[in-house]
Amino acid sequence: MRVSSGVSEKLAHLEVLFDEKVKSYCGLSDVEDCSTPARKIIAESMLYSLNAGGKRLRPMLLLEMAKAYHGNMDIAMNFACAIEMIHTYSLIHDDLPCMDDDDLRRGKPTNHIVYGEDIAILAGDGLLNLSSELMMDTLIENNTSVRLPFAMREILNASGSSGMILGQVADIKYHEAAVDVERLDFINHYKTGKLITSALVSGAYLGDASDDEIILLREIGKEIGLLFQIVDDVLDVVGDPGKLGKRTQIDSRNDKTTYPNLIGMERTSETIEHIKANILKKVEKLSIDHTFLVSLVDFLAEREY
Amino acid sequence: MRVSSGVSEKLAHLEVLFDEKVKSYCGLSDVEDCSTPARKIIAESMLYSLNAGGKRLRPMLLLEMAKAYHGNMDIAMNFACAIEMIHTYSLIHDDLPCMDDDDLRRGKPTNHIVYGEDIAILAGDGLLNLSSELMMDTLIENNTSVRLPFAMREILNASGSSGMILGQVADIKYHEAAVDVERLDFINHYKTGKLITSALVSGAYLGDASDDEIILLREIGKEIGLLFQIVDDVLDVVGDPGKLGKRTQIDSRNDKTTYPNLIGMERTSETIEHIKANILKKVEKLSIDHTFLVSLVDFLAEREY
Repeated sequence: MRVSSGVSEKLAHLEVLFDEKVKSYCGLSDVEDCSTPARKIIAESMLYSLNAGGKRLRPMLLLEMAKAYHGNMDIAMNFACAIEMIHTYSLIHDDLPCMDDDDLRRGKPTNHIVYGEDIAILAGDGLLNLSSELMMDTLIENNTSVRLPFAMREILNASGSSGMILGQVADIKYHEAAVDVERLDFINHYKTGKLITSALVSGAYLGDASDDEIILLREIGKEIGLLFQIVDDVLDVVGDPGKLGKRTQIDSRNDKTTYPNLIGMERTSETIEHIKANILKKVEKLSIDHTFLVSLVDFLAEREY
Repeated sequence: MRVSSGVSEKLAHLEVLFDEKVKSYCGLSDVEDCSTPARKIIAESMLYSLNAGGKRLRPMLLLEMAKAYHGNMDIAMNFACAIEMIHTYSLIHDDLPCMDDDDLRRGKPTNHIVYGEDIAILAGDGLLNLSSELMMDTLIENNTSVRLPFAMREILNASGSSGMILGQVADIKYHEAAVDVERLDFINHYKTGKLITSALVSGAYLGDASDDEIILLREIGKEIGLLFQIVDDVLDVVGDPGKLGKRTQIDSRNDKTTYPNLIGMERTSETIEHIKANILKKVEKLSIDHTFLVSLVDFLAEREY
C-alpha cells in the first residue's frame, strides 16, 4: 500500500518493532529456563499472524494523523503497533472454525491451521492484552503527556464490546435473520469502522488536534470504514484470490448479506462514489494538509487487494 | 468465602457494579436502535459468566490490600471489577471444546454451552477489553494519582502472554510430554499465581505501600498462587462435585499431571503445610495488620470448594 512515501518507511520499521516488542514481552530475551518452549510457541504464533503481510491500514492512519498534528513519533509508533495487534487478534479469532472457518489469510494458512485452535485463541488473547501493556508502558514512560490516556481510551473503546466485538456479534446474529441496508451499515460501522476511526482519532490526540478537528475526524473515519468494507464485499465477488491472498466467494458460501447481493453491483458502485464524495467534502474542512487523506480515499476505492 | 466481614459486603456490591459497568459499556442504557439484539447478547453472555458465583478471591485480595494501605476504595472497586473480568474471561476460553472442554463451571453450564462457541469466544474477548477500558476510564477520571498506571500495568502484565496466557500455553504444551515438579510449579505460577499476585500488588499500589512491601507482597502472592493451585488439584481428586459446582476427576480424565499424581497425596499434604509456613513467615514482616492474610491462608489450605 503506497499512499505516502514517508509512511512506507515507517511501516517497514513496524515489522522490526513487532518482533522486538512481542519477543521482549514474551520474555524471549531472558535467560534460558524450563519455560522456554511455551514462551517460544506463544511468541511465534503471535508473530506469525502479525507479520503475515497485512495492509497496515490502521497503523498508517494513526501515524499520518500524529505526523499531521505534530505528535511525538516514537510514542505514535508504539500506538501504531498496538492498534495492529488488536486488528490481528480480531482476524485470528474471526478465522476460527466456530466463526468464519477460514483456512487462508493474506496468502498464508490461518493461525489455527498452523498452531491449532487452542494456541490460536491464546495468541489472539495475547495480542489483545499486549496492545494494552504496550500503551500502558508508553504512558508510564511519558507521564507528562495528558492526552496520551485519551488516545489509549479511544483504541480500547473501539476494540471492545461496544465497538469491534459488538460488530462481530451483530455479524453472527443478524445473519440468522434478514439483513437490510440499515443493519448492514451497523455491522460495517462497528466491525470495521470503529477501529479505523480510532486510528485517525488517537493519532490526532497524540498530536495537537483541536476538539472540533477530533469530531470531524470521527465522521471521516466512519465513512472510511464503510468505504473499506463495501469495497471488501465487492472484492469478495469480483476479486482475484491470487492478489487478495485469501479465498473469494466466502460471503456467498456463508450466506452473508453484503452490499452487492443486497442492492446489486451497479448501485453498490454508485454508493462507493457517493461515500467518496462525502469524505472529500469533510476532509476539505480539516486544517491539515489534505494530500494523504485524498490519496488514501482513491486508493481504498480502487484497491484490488 | 468469609474471611473478613467488611469485605463480604464489598464483594456483594461487586455484582451490582458488574451489572452497571457491563451494561453501560455495552450501551444498554442507550436509546433503542437496530443494534439492540447484538448489544443484549454480548452483555448477557459476559454477565452470565461474571455473575456465576465465583469465589471472588482476586477482587478480595485487591480490596484488602487497598484498604490496608489506605487507598481510595472507589478506585479500588473499579480495579477489583477489572481483575475479576480478566479471571472470568480466562475461564470462558479455558472451558472451550478445543481447550479443557468443560460443560460445567460453578454449578452452571459453561458459557459456550449456553451461548455457542462463537459468542463465548467474543464474550471472553469483550471482558478482557472491558477490564482495560474500565481501568483506563478510572485513570482519566483520577488523573492526579501517579501510582494508578502502575496498578494497571501490574494487572495487564500478569494477565498477558508473559503471565497467565503463557501459563495456559505451558499447560497445553508441556502435558504432551512428561512433567516434573519444576515444570508443574512453572505452570501453576504463571497460570494461577501471576494474576493472584497482581491483585495483592496492584491493591497495594492503589494505597501507600513502600517499594520494599511491594517486593514482599510479590513473594507472598507467588506462594499463595501455588497453595491455591495445589489445593485445587487435591479437590479434583477428593472433592465433592456438589460443593465444588464442577465435575471432578477432570485432571485424570485429561491425563494432566498434578501434585497428587506426581508425588502422592501424603507428600502433597506436607507441601501444603510447608507453603503455609513460608507464607506466614513472610506475612509477619509486613507493616500492616496480619489478620486478613493469616485467615486467608487458613481458608485456602482447608477450603472444600
